[in-house]
Amino acid sequence: MILQRVEVAEDGGHVLYVSHDPDEGEKEISQEELDDLVSSGQIPPLLSDTEEVAAQLKEAMQSGNPMELKLFTEEKRRAIETAKAQEKIAKEQETYSAGYYESYEKVEVHEVMLKDTPRNYAYATAIEKCAHKIAGKAVLDVGCGTGILSMLCAKAGARVVYAVEASKMAVTAERIVKDNNLQHIVKVYHCPVESVQLPEQVDVIISEWMGFYLLHESMLQSVLKARDLHLKPDGLMMPSKANVYAVPVSLHDFRREKIDFWDKVVGFDMRAVQDTVWEEAMSAPLIDVIGPGSMMAKPQIFASLDLHKVTAAELEKLSATLKFTVTKEDDLAGICCYFDTSFFGTANGVPIVLNTSPESPPTHWKQTVCLLGVFARVKPGEEVEINLNMVQDSFNPRHYIISLET
Amino acid sequence: MILQRVEVAEDGGHVLYVSHDPDEGEKEISQEELDDLVSSGQIPPLLSDTEEVAAQLKEAMQSGNPMELKLFTEEKRRAIETAKAQEKIAKEQETYSAGYYESYEKVEVHEVMLKDTPRNYAYATAIEKCAHKIAGKAVLDVGCGTGILSMLCAKAGARVVYAVEASKMAVTAERIVKDNNLQHIVKVYHCPVESVQLPEQVDVIISEWMGFYLLHESMLQSVLKARDLHLKPDGLMMPSKANVYAVPVSLHDFRREKIDFWDKVVGFDMRAVQDTVWEEAMSAPLIDVIGPGSMMAKPQIFASLDLHKVTAAELEKLSATLKFTVTKEDDLAGICCYFDTSFFGTANGVPIVLNTSPESPPTHWKQTVCLLGVFARVKPGEEVEINLNMVQDSFNPRHYIISLET
Repeated sequence: MILQRVEVAEDGGHVLYVSHDPDEGEKEISQEELDDLVSSGQIPPLLSDTEEVAAQLKEAMQSGNPMELKLFTEEKRRAIETAKAQEKIAKEQETYSAGYYESYEKVEVHEVMLKDTPRNYAYATAIEKCAHKIAGKAVLDVGCGTGILSMLCAKAGARVVYAVEASKMAVTAERIVKDNNLQHIVKVYHCPVESVQLPEQVDVIISEWMGFYLLHESMLQSVLKARDLHLKPDGLMMPSKANVYAVPVSLHDFRREKIDFWDKVVGFDMRAVQDTVWEEAMSAPLIDVIGPGSMMAKPQIFASLDLHKVTAAELEKLSATLKFTVTKEDDLAGICCYFDTSFFGTANGVPIVLNTSPESPPTHWKQTVCLLGVFARVKPGEEVEINLNMVQDSFNPRHYIISLET
Repeated sequence: MILQRVEVAEDGGHVLYVSHDPDEGEKEISQEELDDLVSSGQIPPLLSDTEEVAAQLKEAMQSGNPMELKLFTEEKRRAIETAKAQEKIAKEQETYSAGYYESYEKVEVHEVMLKDTPRNYAYATAIEKCAHKIAGKAVLDVGCGTGILSMLCAKAGARVVYAVEASKMAVTAERIVKDNNLQHIVKVYHCPVESVQLPEQVDVIISEWMGFYLLHESMLQSVLKARDLHLKPDGLMMPSKANVYAVPVSLHDFRREKIDFWDKVVGFDMRAVQDTVWEEAMSAPLIDVIGPGSMMAKPQIFASLDLHKVTAAELEKLSATLKFTVTKEDDLAGICCYFDTSFFGTANGVPIVLNTSPESPPTHWKQTVCLLGVFARVKPGEEVEINLNMVQDSFNPRHYIISLET
């Protein structure tokens, strides 16, 4: 038994680390090294056995000085430290997860989605046009929210809809399903889809999983897990495809209201504030509805996902170098990202697509713009080349880190 | 020396609490009690002196079992626990304070204020009309933000303006002052006003301290401290008076968009969501611009403050019973609170008042409505009596707890 080190604890006591068996203590240091540390004053004098510990205890008590001893085998100490570190990481991850689900307990989030007409229209049309693939079949709705997609599938003739919702909204969804007399078809499960136990493989997976710039929230990863676990080999994904687009844009409103505004405020020069505005604007992309007039080139596809095949690993990092030819003279402010997502089948011969482009009617996803940090004057015919990266944040996988190089 | 108790620590070790002097250990228990606890198995066997501690240590080490000992005098243990508790409270309070100041580092907050025309107009007019009281005098601007009020006072002829700002915006304010060539008059202090050291007593204190329903943020309390410490006995407060008003209101927009919306959504009955909407709506007042058409009676004064005299203690709890006579048939949704604040002097014979009433042009303070939780049909001539309380939250003094009884 060797006392390896003595540390002053936060509360003023002393902590002694002990190795029970010198052979097993990987981090044990030699007696010479210990002596060197002590004689050089880097650590306090060490005690070499329990008799000395007892003497020190006695002295500490008699003098009325508090003293703390922690005695562990080195192995146990390492086990405790590892467990503490793991617990800390698990707690952080849990907080993110809990926060994510909690956000969907707020009614306002559902209100915004249910007031999004292009969203509702695309899903309702897709379900109507796929009625032949839904009728009599089993459907899984991943993240059902208020249950609207599940109920639309039930109305389209589904035999059963497994409606899975991790947030407390599941409790309300169950009441809504009952109020609409669809409880014999729609079965609500209050749990993350990752842990749901279904009585059968399903024919269709429907989900409204899209976030800002498609991937924010990383809910797609959960949908893909559900697909791999619960969808029949020839089952249908709704939606079945998704594309992320990028296009250079000007931002006249942003410039006027957020930057130029500070040129003169109530008669004073407040341009000093602009540094802080840029700092804030560069720390996270701008999420706003930008008009079609902002587009300065033909949009290009940044990423294209086949939702029957794409894997979670492929979503960890998306990267592309894109070349745009400028179509009009203006101040280039940044790169706008948006997505579309499409469904199997057509309506009146036209593919069923939910499009969040600046040229489409606004949705609650708006558009996402990564700013350059300057307004760069460009002219028609000029080429703009960018390298765009979207990397899943390893610390909070619900977020992506977007970087842009010009 | 008596070992008082042994506890199993979270990490599997043992914790022993020791009293150095049996006479001083208030929480010490008798030997009989200890023996009873041990024999009944409620605590593990106790050790009575250091020799036994040493023996136990030796055994624990030889067996390879980890063991933790914490040895403190009872007095020291209590001191540590008290210090920990105090530190925890201090940290929480600090977090609130830091969070409050941080919110004023965001440019957007200042943008909203500086785009508030009624606000800017009232202060600019008041400063202009008080130029005779400002010229050649010392002014203190409490929470100067971007420095706009300080610079207006400088333009009105102030000899010196002490511009105090706790948030990092102070750094930008200093740059702005210099950019406008007013640094010989406006002196920026980057600290809470509570800790500022001024070279003299001031003639005027100007501040834009008002929050939602006047009192939210509790910044007035800081202004009053500054008044008591730094204002000359006959000095001027700008503004000098403030009133909080209350009036019963209908809320047709709220009802249509937040409640009735759920009656039928994409063809489904979603009234079940309304319970959650009400729950959320009742947990915090509604802050929104409500039109003058929402008012259902003559507004009444809930509280009236003379800012030359009012004390922080008087702001801890404001309470009043108010009687309203309904003027039109409608659904009563709640009680709307708003404020006005006025300045010394007149403009064209009219008092200079910044009014946030539903009948005045909208400001960034909007109006604050405490909801009843139902829509109560009332008719002209009916009397509505309410008891309204605004109590400063002892846990987070920046907040008030508003309660309403009908």
